Amino acid sequence: MRNEEMIIRKKEHWFRMLFIWQGSVLPGLLPRLIMLFLLSLVVVYLHGTIFSFKVPLNPMPLTLFGFVLALFLGFRNGASYDRYWEGRKLWGALLNANRSLVRQALTLPGGTADPARIESFVRLLNAFTYALKHQLRGSDPTDDLKQRLDKEQLAEISREKYKPVILLNLMATWVARQRTAGRIDTNLQARFDENFDKLTDVVGGCERIISTPIPYSYQVLLHRTVYVYCFLLPFGLVDSLGWLTPFIVVFIAYTFVAFEAIADEIEEPFGVDANDLALTQMCQMIEYTTLESAGLPTGTVPNDALDVVD
Amino acid sequence: MRNEEMIIRKKEHWFRMLFIWQGSVLPGLLPRLIMLFLLSLVVVYLHGTIFSFKVPLNPMPLTLFGFVLALFLGFRNGASYDRYWEGRKLWGALLNANRSLVRQALTLPGGTADPARIESFVRLLNAFTYALKHQLRGSDPTDDLKQRLDKEQLAEISREKYKPVILLNLMATWVARQRTAGRIDTNLQARFDENFDKLTDVVGGCERIISTPIPYSYQVLLHRTVYVYCFLLPFGLVDSLGWLTPFIVVFIAYTFVAFEAIADEIEEPFGVDANDLALTQMCQMIEYTTLESAGLPTGTVPNDALDVVD
Amino acid sequence: MRNEEMIIRKKEHWFRMLFIWQGSVLPGLLPRLIMLFLLSLVVVYLHGTIFSFKVPLNPMPLTLFGFVLALFLGFRNGASYDRYWEGRKLWGALLNANRSLVRQALTLPGGTADPARIESFVRLLNAFTYALKHQLRGSDPTDDLKQRLDKEQLAEISREKYKPVILLNLMATWVARQRTAGRIDTNLQARFDENFDKLTDVVGGCERIISTPIPYSYQVLLHRTVYVYCFLLPFGLVDSLGWLTPFIVVFIAYTFVAFEAIADEIEEPFGVDANDLALTQMCQMIEYTTLESAGLPTGTVPNDALDVVD
Amino acid sequence: MRNEEMIIRKKEHWFRMLFIWQGSVLPGLLPRLIMLFLLSLVVVYLHGTIFSFKVPLNPMPLTLFGFVLALFLGFRNGASYDRYWEGRKLWGALLNANRSLVRQALTLPGGTADPARIESFVRLLNAFTYALKHQLRGSDPTDDLKQRLDKEQLAEISREKYKPVILLNLMATWVARQRTAGRIDTNLQARFDENFDKLTDVVGGCERIISTPIPYSYQVLLHRTVYVYCFLLPFGLVDSLGWLTPFIVVFIAYTFVAFEAIADEIEEPFGVDANDLALTQMCQMIEYTTLESAGLPTGTVPNDALDVVD
Amino acid sequence: MRNEEMIIRKKEHWFRMLFIWQGSVLPGLLPRLIMLFLLSLVVVYLHGTIFSFKVPLNPMPLTLFGFVLALFLGFRNGASYDRYWEGRKLWGALLNANRSLVRQALTLPGGTADPARIESFVRLLNAFTYALKHQLRGSDPTDDLKQRLDKEQLAEISREKYKPVILLNLMATWVARQRTAGRIDTNLQARFDENFDKLTDVVGGCERIISTPIPYSYQVLLHRTVYVYCFLLPFGLVDSLGWLTPFIVVFIAYTFVAFEAIADEIEEPFGVDANDLALTQMCQMIEYTTLESAGLPTGTVPNDALDVVD
Repeated sequence: MRNEEMIIRKKEHWFRMLFIWQGSVLPGLLPRLIMLFLLSLVVVYLHGTIFSFKVPLNPMPLTLFGFVLALFLGFRNGASYDRYWEGRKLWGALLNANRSLVRQALTLPGGTADPARIESFVRLLNAFTYALKHQLRGSDPTDDLKQRLDKEQLAEISREKYKPVILLNLMATWVARQRTAGRIDTNLQARFDENFDKLTDVVGGCERIISTPIPYSYQVLLHRTVYVYCFLLPFGLVDSLGWLTPFIVVFIAYTFVAFEAIADEIEEPFGVDANDLALTQMCQMIEYTTLESAGLPTGTVPNDALDVVD
Repeated sequence: MRNEEMIIRKKEHWFRMLFIWQGSVLPGLLPRLIMLFLLSLVVVYLHGTIFSFKVPLNPMPLTLFGFVLALFLGFRNGASYDRYWEGRKLWGALLNANRSLVRQALTLPGGTADPARIESFVRLLNAFTYALKHQLRGSDPTDDLKQRLDKEQLAEISREKYKPVILLNLMATWVARQRTAGRIDTNLQARFDENFDKLTDVVGGCERIISTPIPYSYQVLLHRTVYVYCFLLPFGLVDSLGWLTPFIVVFIAYTFVAFEAIADEIEEPFGVDANDLALTQMCQMIEYTTLESAGLPTGTVPNDALDVVD
Repeated sequence: MRNEEMIIRKKEHWFRMLFIWQGSVLPGLLPRLIMLFLLSLVVVYLHGTIFSFKVPLNPMPLTLFGFVLALFLGFRNGASYDRYWEGRKLWGALLNANRSLVRQALTLPGGTADPARIESFVRLLNAFTYALKHQLRGSDPTDDLKQRLDKEQLAEISREKYKPVILLNLMATWVARQRTAGRIDTNLQARFDENFDKLTDVVGGCERIISTPIPYSYQVLLHRTVYVYCFLLPFGLVDSLGWLTPFIVVFIAYTFVAFEAIADEIEEPFGVDANDLALTQMCQMIEYTTLESAGLPTGTVPNDALDVVD
Repeated sequence: MRNEEMIIRKKEHWFRMLFIWQGSVLPGLLPRLIMLFLLSLVVVYLHGTIFSFKVPLNPMPLTLFGFVLALFLGFRNGASYDRYWEGRKLWGALLNANRSLVRQALTLPGGTADPARIESFVRLLNAFTYALKHQLRGSDPTDDLKQRLDKEQLAEISREKYKPVILLNLMATWVARQRTAGRIDTNLQARFDENFDKLTDVVGGCERIISTPIPYSYQVLLHRTVYVYCFLLPFGLVDSLGWLTPFIVVFIAYTFVAFEAIADEIEEPFGVDANDLALTQMCQMIEYTTLESAGLPTGTVPNDALDVVD
Repeated sequence: MRNEEMIIRKKEHWFRMLFIWQGSVLPGLLPRLIMLFLLSLVVVYLHGTIFSFKVPLNPMPLTLFGFVLALFLGFRNGASYDRYWEGRKLWGALLNANRSLVRQALTLPGGTADPARIESFVRLLNAFTYALKHQLRGSDPTDDLKQRLDKEQLAEISREKYKPVILLNLMATWVARQRTAGRIDTNLQARFDENFDKLTDVVGGCERIISTPIPYSYQVLLHRTVYVYCFLLPFGLVDSLGWLTPFIVVFIAYTFVAFEAIADEIEEPFGVDANDLALTQMCQMIEYTTLESAGLPTGTVPNDALDVVD
């Protein structure tokens, strides 16, 4: 399960980093780069002719175009990274709101904090976190919900499509019961409610990132331009570079194609690619810190996750 | 109706993606690119002369200018994409505020949540969502409002120009009635009111994007520069590229012109172009989740939309 | 009056757009471009010599410098556009806060909404909007204020320098009177007050944009560099381009100079240049929607504005 | 005193703007540029040889490098401008919060606004503004504080290091006294308190900009690269440009060096360089508008400042 | 201890700045640059041949690639700087919230401010600040906590993993006790609670930056491309630059490699590299200003820090 998610590593020595394999996008691109290497070899062998017509491509238009391409790739890349980082910020906001809600449940009523009383609330919080993860990945939340909800809640939740939203309603109902019981007044109920609004924003924000990719025509246009450019490269460079052509072509192509591939990967940050967000570990960390903060036992939370999102 | 809106697709294989037709802007640009191809053919045939004057254009100024153009296009493009993404964020904020309001209506009064009592409130919320969509597209909202409002409300709304604003007033009146009925106090009324402020911001934000395009002189300047540049390209390249000129010219022109075309398309994200926002599907999704969250039947909501904005 | 403000047009056909005159910055730049054209002609005629010294400028340093210049112009341009768009956002926030205040005045007190009671409040709101417009443009607000304020208010306001601020105080006094009259309590008074804070932010934000231009040394530096560059261009290009020099020089210069001119124009978005914000139309639209929302007659508001900012 | 601060001028005619001296960074850079001009003359005279070794530098690597340099300068420049503009926004937020606090002091208690009662509060506000200015510039605030505080307050303040923070405490104490006197309740006290939070953010934000420059290694790296580049320029250009070399070298160097110099200047926006923020004028304007808004006499405020930040 | 943290210096004279050693990244990169210098020497000696095969690399592809590389480095660099600056903003927000909380503790209850009563609260605040520092650096907080907490608190805290979160709970409990004691009501308790939410956001924000680096594949890709590029440089330049090759190669490589190294360093702003944030000094400054603001003795706070973050 660890492999499906983000790889976080110690800093490597600068020299060893040149030869890293895992976590790089190189493996997936290798077949295409080998094809390009072979094509370049043929071009060198035929001295840039096709059916004995010399292809009169010189480096100038390729220079111009490489630069233009880099600018456009830079735009695509920036947009993808913004989506990635916004996804991370949303999960950070989830952590913050969860911790704040636990603190509010503990301290707003005044008196000595009683962990037992708020246990059901903390369980709802954590069920919410896991339910969101499963919604974003399209996976089955039943196991994770079963451990955190009672039967009645579970039956209600499993019928619904947008589970995190319903779980927020249950939390708000818990708070309303605290008011009915006279532990808080409407001033303090309003403070809880503000944090529920923040959690609603997190859910909607994650759904927005998943449901609205970067406009499709950008992807098509850039993809086409990058690959046509790589195909033209050997014809343009063969006259000046000779037998070095395949190496330089593959080096340049690697940079362009890899940049496009990374942008593609992080554009949907909630998936299970090597560079996507470590949602499972985040869930575990959020559960640990909310339980700890509430004074509840944290024994059941897997421990290896805590160093990742610490 | 599906065709009028944003196309969301599964990831294609990198090779098939090179030949995609639908969702690309290529079809619309084809006539211009063919014209340019023919022009380039003529230029090649005449070896770059006009009325036997050789046009002494070499690639250097075109290289310089291509860079400059790419930089300026990048600026235009970034501004357009920001508008697109802000439009999407506004509709995300609409979803969030709607869900929060439903939660507040359900839980702030305390006691058991009674779906029937808040049905009229949820209907107003959804009428608001549809009214905004129709205002942004300049389409007729009558059908969608009829299904969600009673006769009296409908009569009041249909007289008004800025319908979503009036619907917000009706929602706020509903909340004020809850206070008069003693179900909430002014602390909790204030919490509803904060979310009404957010919805007002959404309406105004969408109106801002529609009513204030990127300054017109940018559009004129860039448009002119791109097309003059494409027109000069064959003269500049013919000496060095020979018979390859038309192909390279069209390839370079395609990238420039397509970038401008996409920027133009997403600049107004609420329209019905292929890359615009899927407002209709969003409305359906928002209606589904608010009904579900309120415990009301969702049977009448079309189902195919839910996977799009999920 | 229409000519003084932003031009919003239907999308033009791509071909007609090449020859648009109005709304482009070309007319204002024509004299300079003609001067440059004549200079280039002379340079071509003398084959790039000055007093029979050949000016040994080749295209290389101009290429380098063109890139650099484009980058710096891009920075200036981005900063100007941000100011323009922030100005627009501030007026959007003004619209939103005005609508929210009308909704609060209508609905927070509970009971049936009584348009007559809040008429004086809505008048203050609209006087505020017009007063801000006139402050930003340095024009005389007397006429617009007279139509919306009573004599006593008018006398008080006309003595003051920062009129919108005083009008906000009058609105807050109106709200305080509602509390004294028992219609709202301090919870709801606080909600009004939050929106008054937002309006104060709008006033201060607009004043900030007007009073703090982009640092003067940037403007001087870029201006100088652009014009020296355009002056050097014909000397650098004449050897390779021959009789084509004047045309290419003017084309390149047009792009650089026009970009600088647009940046200059939109940097102060509250003026009356062709690309500045349509403040007058926005005022009319804001007045219309606040009157409509309050259930007051909108007859006196000019109608042509509503499609502009709709 | 006027000379120490930001220069705001009317738009100049485009031609006169080419020869502006004051407010440009040119004067400060002149000695370095003259040195470079002389160096270039020597290089031209020796035809690019050093001790009769020809320096084989051609323009190509300089082109590459010039472009790279421009990109990095662009980054530095953007970061500096963001700091400048954030500094300005913080002072804008200060103005807004001050105006809001005056409005709250006037209107939240209800009843007729009594300027006399809030005079001591407005004095504290203005003392706060001046105290912040002096803290940011490391200057002596005694004179400005003496005019606005009574003896007891002055004695308390002058002992403390972070004066604006203590002044905020005094304001909050004033508000607490209003509550004790029964003029406002805790709901309204909370509203004041929110604006005090904003002022605290302003203080901390200004301190952050001053205490955390752009990382030092960026400055060193860019500085070095720019100057080494300028030193290499004449050697690279002498072969192709001949006697024109010194002029072109100085022109290119001017642009690079000036950009770095401006970035350096605006990076610390609270200083007294020509392009820094006009803090003194802003203080005067803020004092004028708060006094006016409170209905207090504005006679003692210098009048020339009001047009600057108007 | 001073050496482990950010170096803040007076502005140097522009000429002396060229030869600065400390605070620059040059020392760490020297071995690599010397290796590259030696490699270039060998390439010059062999006239660009390997085993008597001439490496036919000309400057053109290196020019193209240098641009592309600079663009991508610029992206990486911008992302790193954003992380650095966000880290700084979070600590700024911590300062602001701490000051606001002290002000609230002093003034919200009304009556004369009594420093003694809030001393335990201020101690918790400062323990929180130090605990966060130690969590971010993975260092041992015991010493710093011992000085600020009583035994019971210390025992409770030392058992927990996420110490700052628990300390926030203790502060909120202190506030709840003030309410039970009748000094504040729930309105004012809610205001404290909002600032606790901000501190929770600070903790989560810092944890986010530490736990989520820039995607690993970016780092690998850029690192590889930069070093392969530097390795190819001497082969591409030797023909045109001759004996100057090693100097120019090292100059260009220095800029690229140093930019990558700085980006790497500031990407994790909470470490103890030369360009990282001065967390220890910030803690001291925050403690000083909160004690001063509360009217408590500041004698025990080291004084040298105050000028750094002032």
